[in-house]
Amino acid sequence: MSLVTFGETALRFAPPDGQRFETAREVRMRADGTASTVAATASRLGGDAVWLSKLPDTPLGRRVVAELHEHGLETDVVWADADDGRQGLTFYEDAAAPRADRLLQDRGDTAMATLTPGEIPMGRIQNADVVFTAGSMAALSATAAETAGALLRAAPGMRALDLDYHPGLWSAEAAHDTLSDLFDAVDLLFASEDQAKAVFDKTGRPRELVHTLAAEYDFSRVILTRSEHGVVAYHDTVVHEQDAFETAAVDSSGQHAALVGAVLQRLADGAPTDDALAYGSAAAALTRTMPGPLTPLEQAEVERLVESQSDRGR
Amino acid sequence: MSLVTFGETALRFAPPDGQRFETAREVRMRADGTASTVAATASRLGGDAVWLSKLPDTPLGRRVVAELHEHGLETDVVWADADDGRQGLTFYEDAAAPRADRLLQDRGDTAMATLTPGEIPMGRIQNADVVFTAGSMAALSATAAETAGALLRAAPGMRALDLDYHPGLWSAEAAHDTLSDLFDAVDLLFASEDQAKAVFDKTGRPRELVHTLAAEYDFSRVILTRSEHGVVAYHDTVVHEQDAFETAAVDSSGQHAALVGAVLQRLADGAPTDDALAYGSAAAALTRTMPGPLTPLEQAEVERLVESQSDRGR
Amino acid sequence: MSLVTFGETALRFAPPDGQRFETAREVRMRADGTASTVAATASRLGGDAVWLSKLPDTPLGRRVVAELHEHGLETDVVWADADDGRQGLTFYEDAAAPRADRLLQDRGDTAMATLTPGEIPMGRIQNADVVFTAGSMAALSATAAETAGALLRAAPGMRALDLDYHPGLWSAEAAHDTLSDLFDAVDLLFASEDQAKAVFDKTGRPRELVHTLAAEYDFSRVILTRSEHGVVAYHDTVVHEQDAFETAAVDSSGQHAALVGAVLQRLADGAPTDDALAYGSAAAALTRTMPGPLTPLEQAEVERLVESQSDRGR
Amino acid sequence: MSLVTFGETALRFAPPDGQRFETAREVRMRADGTASTVAATASRLGGDAVWLSKLPDTPLGRRVVAELHEHGLETDVVWADADDGRQGLTFYEDAAAPRADRLLQDRGDTAMATLTPGEIPMGRIQNADVVFTAGSMAALSATAAETAGALLRAAPGMRALDLDYHPGLWSAEAAHDTLSDLFDAVDLLFASEDQAKAVFDKTGRPRELVHTLAAEYDFSRVILTRSEHGVVAYHDTVVHEQDAFETAAVDSSGQHAALVGAVLQRLADGAPTDDALAYGSAAAALTRTMPGPLTPLEQAEVERLVESQSDRGR
Amino acid sequence: MSLVTFGETALRFAPPDGQRFETAREVRMRADGTASTVAATASRLGGDAVWLSKLPDTPLGRRVVAELHEHGLETDVVWADADDGRQGLTFYEDAAAPRADRLLQDRGDTAMATLTPGEIPMGRIQNADVVFTAGSMAALSATAAETAGALLRAAPGMRALDLDYHPGLWSAEAAHDTLSDLFDAVDLLFASEDQAKAVFDKTGRPRELVHTLAAEYDFSRVILTRSEHGVVAYHDTVVHEQDAFETAAVDSSGQHAALVGAVLQRLADGAPTDDALAYGSAAAALTRTMPGPLTPLEQAEVERLVESQSDRGR
Amino acid sequence: MSLVTFGETALRFAPPDGQRFETAREVRMRADGTASTVAATASRLGGDAVWLSKLPDTPLGRRVVAELHEHGLETDVVWADADDGRQGLTFYEDAAAPRADRLLQDRGDTAMATLTPGEIPMGRIQNADVVFTAGSMAALSATAAETAGALLRAAPGMRALDLDYHPGLWSAEAAHDTLSDLFDAVDLLFASEDQAKAVFDKTGRPRELVHTLAAEYDFSRVILTRSEHGVVAYHDTVVHEQDAFETAAVDSSGQHAALVGAVLQRLADGAPTDDALAYGSAAAALTRTMPGPLTPLEQAEVERLVESQSDRGR
Repeated sequence: MSLVTFGETALRFAPPDGQRFETAREVRMRADGTASTVAATASRLGGDAVWLSKLPDTPLGRRVVAELHEHGLETDVVWADADDGRQGLTFYEDAAAPRADRLLQDRGDTAMATLTPGEIPMGRIQNADVVFTAGSMAALSATAAETAGALLRAAPGMRALDLDYHPGLWSAEAAHDTLSDLFDAVDLLFASEDQAKAVFDKTGRPRELVHTLAAEYDFSRVILTRSEHGVVAYHDTVVHEQDAFETAAVDSSGQHAALVGAVLQRLADGAPTDDALAYGSAAAALTRTMPGPLTPLEQAEVERLVESQSDRGR
Repeated sequence: MSLVTFGETALRFAPPDGQRFETAREVRMRADGTASTVAATASRLGGDAVWLSKLPDTPLGRRVVAELHEHGLETDVVWADADDGRQGLTFYEDAAAPRADRLLQDRGDTAMATLTPGEIPMGRIQNADVVFTAGSMAALSATAAETAGALLRAAPGMRALDLDYHPGLWSAEAAHDTLSDLFDAVDLLFASEDQAKAVFDKTGRPRELVHTLAAEYDFSRVILTRSEHGVVAYHDTVVHEQDAFETAAVDSSGQHAALVGAVLQRLADGAPTDDALAYGSAAAALTRTMPGPLTPLEQAEVERLVESQSDRGR
Repeated sequence: MSLVTFGETALRFAPPDGQRFETAREVRMRADGTASTVAATASRLGGDAVWLSKLPDTPLGRRVVAELHEHGLETDVVWADADDGRQGLTFYEDAAAPRADRLLQDRGDTAMATLTPGEIPMGRIQNADVVFTAGSMAALSATAAETAGALLRAAPGMRALDLDYHPGLWSAEAAHDTLSDLFDAVDLLFASEDQAKAVFDKTGRPRELVHTLAAEYDFSRVILTRSEHGVVAYHDTVVHEQDAFETAAVDSSGQHAALVGAVLQRLADGAPTDDALAYGSAAAALTRTMPGPLTPLEQAEVERLVESQSDRGR
Repeated sequence: MSLVTFGETALRFAPPDGQRFETAREVRMRADGTASTVAATASRLGGDAVWLSKLPDTPLGRRVVAELHEHGLETDVVWADADDGRQGLTFYEDAAAPRADRLLQDRGDTAMATLTPGEIPMGRIQNADVVFTAGSMAALSATAAETAGALLRAAPGMRALDLDYHPGLWSAEAAHDTLSDLFDAVDLLFASEDQAKAVFDKTGRPRELVHTLAAEYDFSRVILTRSEHGVVAYHDTVVHEQDAFETAAVDSSGQHAALVGAVLQRLADGAPTDDALAYGSAAAALTRTMPGPLTPLEQAEVERLVESQSDRGR
Repeated sequence: MSLVTFGETALRFAPPDGQRFETAREVRMRADGTASTVAATASRLGGDAVWLSKLPDTPLGRRVVAELHEHGLETDVVWADADDGRQGLTFYEDAAAPRADRLLQDRGDTAMATLTPGEIPMGRIQNADVVFTAGSMAALSATAAETAGALLRAAPGMRALDLDYHPGLWSAEAAHDTLSDLFDAVDLLFASEDQAKAVFDKTGRPRELVHTLAAEYDFSRVILTRSEHGVVAYHDTVVHEQDAFETAAVDSSGQHAALVGAVLQRLADGAPTDDALAYGSAAAALTRTMPGPLTPLEQAEVERLVESQSDRGR
Repeated sequence: MSLVTFGETALRFAPPDGQRFETAREVRMRADGTASTVAATASRLGGDAVWLSKLPDTPLGRRVVAELHEHGLETDVVWADADDGRQGLTFYEDAAAPRADRLLQDRGDTAMATLTPGEIPMGRIQNADVVFTAGSMAALSATAAETAGALLRAAPGMRALDLDYHPGLWSAEAAHDTLSDLFDAVDLLFASEDQAKAVFDKTGRPRELVHTLAAEYDFSRVILTRSEHGVVAYHDTVVHEQDAFETAAVDSSGQHAALVGAVLQRLADGAPTDDALAYGSAAAALTRTMPGPLTPLEQAEVERLVESQSDRGR
């Protein structure tokens, strides 16, 4: 199978050990983007995956790509002139409950906001079994939103979209309006339960929500992640559920994207939905045990964890 | 409202990550004093608060003040000549259960032990709505104990005292004897349950303890903190209770002083006792999620946490 | 004397130990602004100084102010709504020769770019003995440039400007055009030799350059810093020179602004030019021995260093 | 009492904070050997203990001994020429559940593999009340296995062996075959439940297992550790059980060896089995609260923890 | 041009800040191999370069490749089973003069020692313009030495060898004997002056040494690096010399390999020898300003440095 | 030979990287005492050395001894009850020129100030070839000064004293008065040139100073260290001089004590003065290349450095 993902990957700054920016001195830098984490996860689990993007040719843009390469991901990047667009940045405060995590978006005027279909190696899209992008891309600019639509429409196989909704980027209404224009070119919708409820302005139980969304927007699959409550999927009139694996979490960031990457990799390999959800949940659980959004997941351990579940199930 | 606190703030050294001094190489330095944390908390929650103290004019004394300023606290410090008194120091080993935390006091011959009322800007005391000090100040020297008494007696509004009892500073008997001379000038007594039982040589249930102490010493309010068991307060014949907010704690130091600061800030603003205890507990919980005794608490998040409790209560 | 400075202070990120962003994982955060460092230096050397600015009310904006307070600086900040303007950022790679330092400016759409004179506490300007700003402020927007002019024109005493020219912010031509409109309101011009040559498109020896600039633009004083080559000043037809103090440098950032702050503090106190230059050079030298643009300089050691020079001179 | 232990102590490298070697940059170095941790624990709890070994006279070999000395352990080391044998190394990835810890053994051709009885100060063995070694020593080479047997047979008092089985060193079958030759010279067998089941190819309940092993191999005592499930011991037809002390664990490494050291110290002092198990469990629990396999345990706190259990038991 | 390099890359451990292993606690991990640094340098300077090697499929082997990928190097690795060979390790103590650096080799029984020509993608060798290896590879085993010879002989274009002699790996005599068998298949010999003198048992001036070696072994080019004394090259009866660029060195490791990579890249592009030496020296100088053997060198800055030299030369 | 040293060893706190306490967050802890560094150096260079002292039985006192043991030093410590005396502390700011280093002494009421001869294992003194102490010990209290005198007088062999004068401990006059009472029991006086001039209130050239001091106080040897200017010694009417070895210094602390330890070790072994001074200077130079007052010096490298000097001298 071959997976192509595209979307903006920000450079994330985060103080360590529960500190806040207000009084921190040292911060950690990490590449942070749904599309790149999805591709990296699929690739580490044995898939043939590549990430397409546009970045400024600056130390910050090169920093993003160096980390993706370190994790073994193949990239195909349009390098923008330094004056042509900024590197997208995020500032993240990880917090223990009951303090809430805080994510500051600083992604105005980024290079990715200027991406046009003509800059992309379109052959990669046209030869892919699965094409994936994140809704956040459409928040960057009208150009970016149009490019996202054009690329999805050019994709011959399965088209997957993650809502990837962040209040700091745009409002739920704006997200809904813009993304609605893309939905006809989307076969599989991923979302966290919270994001789905916000963007689609829905309430109700997850089992009903996946059904409603599939019906309303004619998605062939809808997959809702619910953190420690597991994942719920709709496909072909059937609702599938998978419990989350219990973890002594180190860092919860990246778990959703890891699930998406593992699910896409298994689906593309022809696995049934339940199997794909199990792999996705295992990948998410293992990702939680390692720091950073992008983690050195290993295929064998994902498989072992899935099997340990089957063993218990017997 | 305006709050004035006075008391010694030590410089605390602590090895990271569960290490002990015996084999540690690097230690973290933090300003650590009940009176300054109380004022800083009240100030960050919107109050007009200032901390008065006496410190040696050395790199260590200046270090204490720099950290307080970083957190936005207004200070009014009598700077002692370097030969005139040491900077008080504490050495702290934070331990996971069942290992006990260890706090080594090294506070002999400090500058604060020589503080006389004449050195203090008395106008600040006389214009304050609330004056607060910590019992530990009276442990430093007879001079310091007398000064504490003189300042409390000069205060026109509410006078609050925290027991702040540390076995390494003096015995429970000595604390009781010395502090008893101050109690007539105290309206509101704060204490942790353990410290109250040690100093007053009492046993029994917290609800009864607050009642007994108020009756015996004629305090108008007694507020007892009980860590994860919440807080119990006596006021005007009524006993109030507030549960603790559950936290995935990062560092438990400073939580008691944060509660005191938040409670004083709310009481001074005219809030009823229950409301003040809720704010205090929320401030304590959020403080536990951040490293260090002094934390960059934010007013809005304390309010959100208090509201989330009210929501659940409905 | 009283000094008021205004200008944008960025949050600077820099990898440690000669690393580059491309492969770094941890970066250090520091407040980095000429106007704030000038005020902080003057304040630490005994002056009465305050820094005025506009910052977004976000964790990043608050971070800048917390560091300035930690160093003992008084601030008066207009807090902008988070959506109203970004926090200015810089990304800095410190390099050993022959590798060149690299400074990436990321200061588009900052809160400070929207500052109007009406937002500023104008009384502070009108009561100041000396008012200082940095040329970089005029690069942020036409609004900011106009505000800078308005404030300088409202100042009743000495008006000082530092060129503070950064190629990543604007071109030398643009800097010259915009700043030229301010020069009539400037009594004292500071610049590094390199920046002066670039912005004024001049060559030649520093002694001649200060003379030429003073004549051409009618500055009463021109002070040119030349790093390890010392400083050259023009005042009242006389050219003054001061050698640099030799240092085993730890971090060269902040040395120029420290010199400016110390010179302004001495001039405002009525010291003759030679004396002010000696203090400025000593402050710059000591700043080079400490990490970061903003350093905990002490008045006594600046004086000792100036005296050691006088001793050697005899 | 006097305890002599012998065995290889590896130098362990481990990335911090849940990271993996694949993407880590900094790793922590620690001495890691069952025999040295057993001796160090006994010594810190008041015993007279020494550790015998053979190490290469290289920076790595000296590193191991420096850390043991820092913890107060007496050592008697045969220093091998640098070309004569390597320093044993291990590479450890500590993982939060459900990710499994990973321990890579790199202990081929070590100096210890060449140890012969003639190199050992045999008087130390002959005068010891208790001699202890770890089964891993026999995995290093036939020479090392023979030396282990010779030393145990030369010991006049109690002879104790810990299985110390690591799959990366040898197979369970090989371990069983080689160690079986030593069992006649062993009075007391320690093992973790998992290791015992693997090496002896047994299943079943721990209470039965200790009985079976004692009967089959004629051990006078068998002590099985079960992590959070406590410890089970067989002695003189009686099975003893001790619950584990609950801990908020920081680092689980070293807990088994700490238990063994504490148990041996108490048994050698003539304490009854139940008492020894309580001390061992307390030592294990406290070791879990500190980083590293070798921890600065204190005798007084072990005693306090044992007493707190007795108090609860009443 | 296309460059193929092959050779073992060790994982290097080094304590920071002038510390020694004996008392260090944290060490830094870096990929350290001449062949991979040569290829990475050529690649970063615009060349088409790939590194071939054999590594164990363990966390340590994967660590090496992840770092190479992070620096943008293309790799083609034969992954050995974990039991089939170790990851080569080095332990390095960087020392300020007059203390000598210390490099401990721990490279017995590595996976690379088992590499046979049949495992290598021979097409890469046969299509390369330049093939490079390091003499250290031949020290690993007779198999590795034979493989090195076979690959060099299969190369159709320029064959380059770096002596890469380390006393901890083998003796000078053994190195000379084994490498002599390869020399007929080598066109270009690189060596540091010290290594050349040791292996070839020569004394005398560098200008004569390059001449003698070329004549004796029929190399078409000999390039001798002399650290701060520059580089000397022989080609076609002419001796070329290039001064070293002065640097405020951060870390001297990797400078020789960076020079080799830059020289090969320029020669392959058809540049004359003097030009290649200038680029090589500039690459070495910039590498010294960054930590680690492998550095994020940039093509533009190498070119600027070379040009700055030309400017001065005029 | 056997060397016994006694004196107080403080626990030193120092911020890293040129930082000051005022704004530092993390500080490094090191054992810092002349007597212990002298003994440790002699021991690492092959001598039989032990350090005697009195320390509080607290985490801080144990920390001092753990570090000394890590460096291989034998200690014989009188453990004082925690209430009986503090652990001596120093606070150190290492500064690049022209900023001056800063050393804050916090050594009032230490355990060592109460040491009486009866507490010391007097047999160790009586069997030593050389007994050494530091003048700072006499500054602690009259008791400590008397004990120092009593121990020196009980020593049968060579008695050596280092002035070890620190202005923060006592005045030069007080030092002179108190130490003068000890001089009759001192054969060999060590001092840095600056300290000697301050305490003895002398000026003049070092060659004359050693002569004068020996004559005035009847010392058989006087050895004056002059940092980068080498060392000057007087013995038996002859003045000896030794140049300093040039170093790229990492940390200058400990170099004087390392020289003293190496000189004593060589003298006790019967080496001539010139030889002892060469060893001392080499030990000092190597110590400067490693962080901390106490460094893992190796005998072989001291010898190599001494020989390299002899080679150059030929």
